[in-house]
Amino acid sequence: MKYRIKMSKIALLLISLFVSLDALAQHQTTDFHGAVAELDSYKVVFQLNSGDDKVIKGTMRNILNSLEDPRLKGKLQVELVVHSGGVVVFRKDHPYEAQLKALQAKGVILAECENTIREKNISKDQLFDFISYVPSGNGEIIIRQQQGWAIVHP
Amino acid sequence: MKYRIKMSKIALLLISLFVSLDALAQHQTTDFHGAVAELDSYKVVFQLNSGDDKVIKGTMRNILNSLEDPRLKGKLQVELVVHSGGVVVFRKDHPYEAQLKALQAKGVILAECENTIREKNISKDQLFDFISYVPSGNGEIIIRQQQGWAIVHP
Amino acid sequence: MKYRIKMSKIALLLISLFVSLDALAQHQTTDFHGAVAELDSYKVVFQLNSGDDKVIKGTMRNILNSLEDPRLKGKLQVELVVHSGGVVVFRKDHPYEAQLKALQAKGVILAECENTIREKNISKDQLFDFISYVPSGNGEIIIRQQQGWAIVHP
Repeated sequence: MKYRIKMSKIALLLISLFVSLDALAQHQTTDFHGAVAELDSYKVVFQLNSGDDKVIKGTMRNILNSLEDPRLKGKLQVELVVHSGGVVVFRKDHPYEAQLKALQAKGVILAECENTIREKNISKDQLFDFISYVPSGNGEIIIRQQQGWAIVHP
Repeated sequence: MKYRIKMSKIALLLISLFVSLDALAQHQTTDFHGAVAELDSYKVVFQLNSGDDKVIKGTMRNILNSLEDPRLKGKLQVELVVHSGGVVVFRKDHPYEAQLKALQAKGVILAECENTIREKNISKDQLFDFISYVPSGNGEIIIRQQQGWAIVHP
Repeated sequence: MKYRIKMSKIALLLISLFVSLDALAQHQTTDFHGAVAELDSYKVVFQLNSGDDKVIKGTMRNILNSLEDPRLKGKLQVELVVHSGGVVVFRKDHPYEAQLKALQAKGVILAECENTIREKNISKDQLFDFISYVPSGNGEIIIRQQQGWAIVHP
């Protein structure tokens, strides 16, 4: 009896030790290499509200970098929400078709704000036919966040 | 007895079928028309930290578009948090009084950062008397997000 | 017996009254002074993706203002996530060392995006040796938000 109690005490001590070491390891990882991805899936909205070529390309590069982040690879759902001046990225007469299709092939949802095209008198014929539409870009950003998605602003 | 079990099995099958169809419908809606608003209420902070007239007007238009988004209409609480250069929107000698009152009439909380006016030597007398104050704009943005509010940056 | 029931009813009434008064006070505070900080701890990522001196100094000032916000004082964990053009803030040949060390002394995590330094052909030797690295700045921002951190964009 006494022996069994001792054994369980030793087991408890060992478990405590392992838990402490693990916590320490996690703490160090957090300190020196940033956040540890512990969830099974991640969701993020990338906002694009500028028609500046550098901002557009930077946003696309940011999306690719996020999808390739070793902590997120294969676990990240991305939606690109385009509104205001950003609409040029979806125009047929602009040079982003190949890059957009590459993003879409990786599962990225491409969403254009309908308020923007109404305000700017742009018809849907002028935009790529493989994109999606949302009533308002800001509404989309709000709803997605309240559903638990992260937000990245360029 | 046997009959009753069969009936409940059929009911279960029918329920499963309806749930699946519903999930399918939702999935399609998500794919082609963006997020589906499933909550009873939504809360969002709009950040304004620029005094540029185009940014100010764009932020106000974004707030109105969000309030009018058919998915959010009547369900959205908005707070406009103004700090840094954005403070001009609240200055009596600037032309935004009518638009601000229209936003406030729609329930939008108008909040100015007290750090900003201290740093810029602006007295509260120079700002509209119908606005609210918060100790720091960034603190407000942080607390609101941690309370579950979405954030929109211009 | 009857008397005891009456006493408990009065107690109940008094408790209800105090709760109502407290709710009223909270409501007024919310209306006129912004959000009330009710949590024991707050966490926020500040994003810095610009090398503009004004944006860098503004971000540092925003971090300090947040840490000093009376509602957050002693309760706020901050991480500064630097990517893209923002990397200059961590360069040894730039003048931000003292301010960065002051932030670090207040517990601020300083994290640089490894994608950025690879794309810009910057070696870690050129950056301060007291900083941390993350695989991608955007990945860090996404993971932190999904872990419940707030996000502040300059």
